[in-house]
Amino acid sequence: MYESVIQDLIDELGRLPGIGPKSAQRIAFHLLDADPEDVKRFAQTLVDAKTKVLFCSVCGNVTVDTTCRICADPRRDDTVLCVVEESKDVIAIERTREFRGRYHVLGGAISPIAGIGPDQLRIKELLGRLQDGMVTEVIIATDPNLEGEATATYLMRMLVPIGLKVTKLASGLPVGGDLEYADEVTLGRAFEGRTAVG
Amino acid sequence: MYESVIQDLIDELGRLPGIGPKSAQRIAFHLLDADPEDVKRFAQTLVDAKTKVLFCSVCGNVTVDTTCRICADPRRDDTVLCVVEESKDVIAIERTREFRGRYHVLGGAISPIAGIGPDQLRIKELLGRLQDGMVTEVIIATDPNLEGEATATYLMRMLVPIGLKVTKLASGLPVGGDLEYADEVTLGRAFEGRTAVG
Repeated sequence: MYESVIQDLIDELGRLPGIGPKSAQRIAFHLLDADPEDVKRFAQTLVDAKTKVLFCSVCGNVTVDTTCRICADPRRDDTVLCVVEESKDVIAIERTREFRGRYHVLGGAISPIAGIGPDQLRIKELLGRLQDGMVTEVIIATDPNLEGEATATYLMRMLVPIGLKVTKLASGLPVGGDLEYADEVTLGRAFEGRTAVG
Repeated sequence: MYESVIQDLIDELGRLPGIGPKSAQRIAFHLLDADPEDVKRFAQTLVDAKTKVLFCSVCGNVTVDTTCRICADPRRDDTVLCVVEESKDVIAIERTREFRGRYHVLGGAISPIAGIGPDQLRIKELLGRLQDGMVTEVIIATDPNLEGEATATYLMRMLVPIGLKVTKLASGLPVGGDLEYADEVTLGRAFEGRTAVG
């Protein structure tokens, strides 16, 4: 229906996660109407990000240097290591200002359906980082979903025998939500993990 | 929080219509993980589309030539002109295969809030196309919302005195929907526009 350059643009946009065909069309026409300089800058930003962004050689987080800002920061606590799936999880945890240790980014979660097993994740690198005995606690902060839980279980089985303190983030009611809207699994977990207040 | 090249990418993506901050972050990390060749091709597609796509000198539709495919097609009916807001409306109508006339793309709708008045739309060009008396019917196919209706009213007041047949697309129940889920305005319009069946 469309001229091929327009269809190509719609197709490329439609390949992005969470963008359906209607949104892709809407964004394409927005870009066709936009200032040519804005579109050029957007295209350049894409190429720049892809060229400049590397993965930290220590933790696997995104970085523009060989090691990321957190690994390079001497003030962080070397005895606690928090294991997450993705770089964006690092940012989410940093925003809480609750954690001053180091991170390890796995690069995903175990998912047999997507063909991702432990070998596709940065687990060997994690074990390597634990060898010098500096780390005394590993906090597993994978996503609270099927793949994240499977990954957490795998990591626990591997790390507990080493004699490390292994902890997991608490499951429970999201703060600011309504109890009645919590799903039954979350509510169940909130009961299991209830804490004494008096 | 992020390295500036990553933040720039998230910001650029967040400027696209319908992309919130969370989606922008998700898409950015998807692109950082993607094959560099794929990202380069995406950036090139953006620049290509923006460089090659023009607006038809006759109807205002998107095109890669001076006149669009529809205006250039000698088999279309020159006596009926369908007025739409955007190029994507042309595609939507073409998909129905119900219309064999010509189009006129206004480039938007009257919206005092967005500062768009009749002068910002291609209405002068529309009147120019009607001067040779070839067109006998103008079908107004603006969006069935506030701005679209305002634009339709403006066009009707301008075109009816010229002595043209002016029609508007029917409002009513969307086909395939449930009557109970139709909003009251749509249902009211469906009553107003009811047709005799026997």
